[in-house]
Amino acid sequence: MKFASYKSGRDGELYMVSRDLERAVPIPDIACSLRNCLDNWEILLPGLQNRYQCINADGQADNAARFDPTRCSAPLPRATQWLDGSAYVNHVELARKARGVSMPDSFWTNPLMYQGVSDSLLGPCDTITANPDWGVDFEAELAIITNDVPMGCSADNAHQHIMLVTLCNDISLRNLIPEELGKGFGFVQSKPPSSFGPVAVTPDELGNYWQEGKLSLPMQVYLNDQPFGHPDCAVDMTFNFHELIAHAAKTRPLGRGTIIGSGTVSNKDKSTGSCCLVEQRMLEIITSGQPQTPYLKPGDRVRIEITTPDGQSLFGAIEQTFTGNH
Amino acid sequence: MKFASYKSGRDGELYMVSRDLERAVPIPDIACSLRNCLDNWEILLPGLQNRYQCINADGQADNAARFDPTRCSAPLPRATQWLDGSAYVNHVELARKARGVSMPDSFWTNPLMYQGVSDSLLGPCDTITANPDWGVDFEAELAIITNDVPMGCSADNAHQHIMLVTLCNDISLRNLIPEELGKGFGFVQSKPPSSFGPVAVTPDELGNYWQEGKLSLPMQVYLNDQPFGHPDCAVDMTFNFHELIAHAAKTRPLGRGTIIGSGTVSNKDKSTGSCCLVEQRMLEIITSGQPQTPYLKPGDRVRIEITTPDGQSLFGAIEQTFTGNH
Repeated sequence: MKFASYKSGRDGELYMVSRDLERAVPIPDIACSLRNCLDNWEILLPGLQNRYQCINADGQADNAARFDPTRCSAPLPRATQWLDGSAYVNHVELARKARGVSMPDSFWTNPLMYQGVSDSLLGPCDTITANPDWGVDFEAELAIITNDVPMGCSADNAHQHIMLVTLCNDISLRNLIPEELGKGFGFVQSKPPSSFGPVAVTPDELGNYWQEGKLSLPMQVYLNDQPFGHPDCAVDMTFNFHELIAHAAKTRPLGRGTIIGSGTVSNKDKSTGSCCLVEQRMLEIITSGQPQTPYLKPGDRVRIEITTPDGQSLFGAIEQTFTGNH
Repeated sequence: MKFASYKSGRDGELYMVSRDLERAVPIPDIACSLRNCLDNWEILLPGLQNRYQCINADGQADNAARFDPTRCSAPLPRATQWLDGSAYVNHVELARKARGVSMPDSFWTNPLMYQGVSDSLLGPCDTITANPDWGVDFEAELAIITNDVPMGCSADNAHQHIMLVTLCNDISLRNLIPEELGKGFGFVQSKPPSSFGPVAVTPDELGNYWQEGKLSLPMQVYLNDQPFGHPDCAVDMTFNFHELIAHAAKTRPLGRGTIIGSGTVSNKDKSTGSCCLVEQRMLEIITSGQPQTPYLKPGDRVRIEITTPDGQSLFGAIEQTFTGNH
């Protein structure tokens, strides 16, 4: 099943979206918001599945209209938890090089993860507002939404806790990061709210592309309509989503609706490009001693999407414009 | 006004509590949960104030029963944001000394703050469950709950954004902290869910004790019924709550229901004791080269409360037992 939240109030209005992302229908008789839907998922499931059959059978769904990603908020516009992993250790190594910090070997065996802001997440087409001097960057990621995960859940048991999968743009303020991380308590000011894909989908929608908590498809990133990166999400993913769940749940339970990000997708094969500016800048520094690619300038547009080889978009596209200051 | 959430579902059931904390009454006709109440605060305010008058006028509130803190969840059991400041820089200096890390001078002018877990906060009488080997510690703090704070809000404008004030026990796993902070991305595993006071109160309930975003009363901490600390919350608070709000909102808005903590209350005058074990241990190391006070052992009980000089408890008491592993 595919779900979207149209902007409405603080938690959005729940829509069901057809598999081909052509049509969307509100389902207030089943659940008012995605949060409400997840809370009561087990009870609502038969009704949801029945409605999804109708919307995919052309003409069967009353009041279905064209799906409009510009009306979307994040699937969970105010989530109770956003934890972002760094599963692509290759990216971590490059990002740290860019800050002049070495990477401990333990990063290859013990996942890096931070607790991020979740109370006012951005929709897929929301503008990015920030001071350009802060060094505004995008990070294309995959994200999952969990059900209730007990404290101490093992990676082997984690697959049953993934309810939904979506895209994420983890916006980063690069020029604020060194000083803030230097204080030792992680990100507050340097990681403003992330944006999320128009549509969140159940793992069965991903078919055989979804294996062992990884998605074997390229993350397609465009900057001002030019291809910027297309690394495969399953390649060089040192920690799969099952391991990220187990890491997050080591000392605490995870509440239903917890969002966990993969970290910036990154392949060692650099012919696949990058999913964020800082990685590209680091490669330029290594090659020529100087970064050539600037951080986002007002008016810049970033597009993030994953399609199957036959061109079907799985989650719709994140398409954001950076506006500079608000 | 004073509010409590009794355990019920995922968001708790809203109760209004009398000023003397003797009686509590559910107010489902006004709002089902504190979250719902905060979301619609401006509209609900006249009805809330009227009901509060009734419950404080003895015998006027129908269906008021004895207030029972053991039935309480956190005021917001699943909040969308928990940001913990470190306003008592004296504590930060001691905690860092205990880890063998020096403190930059900038900590006296630029607040330290981390984004913590908020999706499954503990009630005031919930047991603390953790592996004793993790070095389980308490931290007695004051916390505020905000309304919608715009991005870039100044400290001068922040006072109008404080809706409620309460207590917090920011549970910390000291033996996990050095390795996790060494990774550079802040706390995930080493800061499990915090617990919060039985009652959250509007700032006007604090009278003249509440001045300039500080509370001029001692934080009273007991370990196994023995006094452990009683530092004044307004003394040596380098950053008041207005400054903490401004710091949090520099690069993003804060959604209504954001909880901001003061950090462990700590006075330079060490005759007032400590609000966490690690500070006491550090003082012992400085004095005798060795810590004498152990971290929490199964069965240990911590009590955190603030009373006025005439003995009136403002928020009720956090009273938690550490049970060891679950």
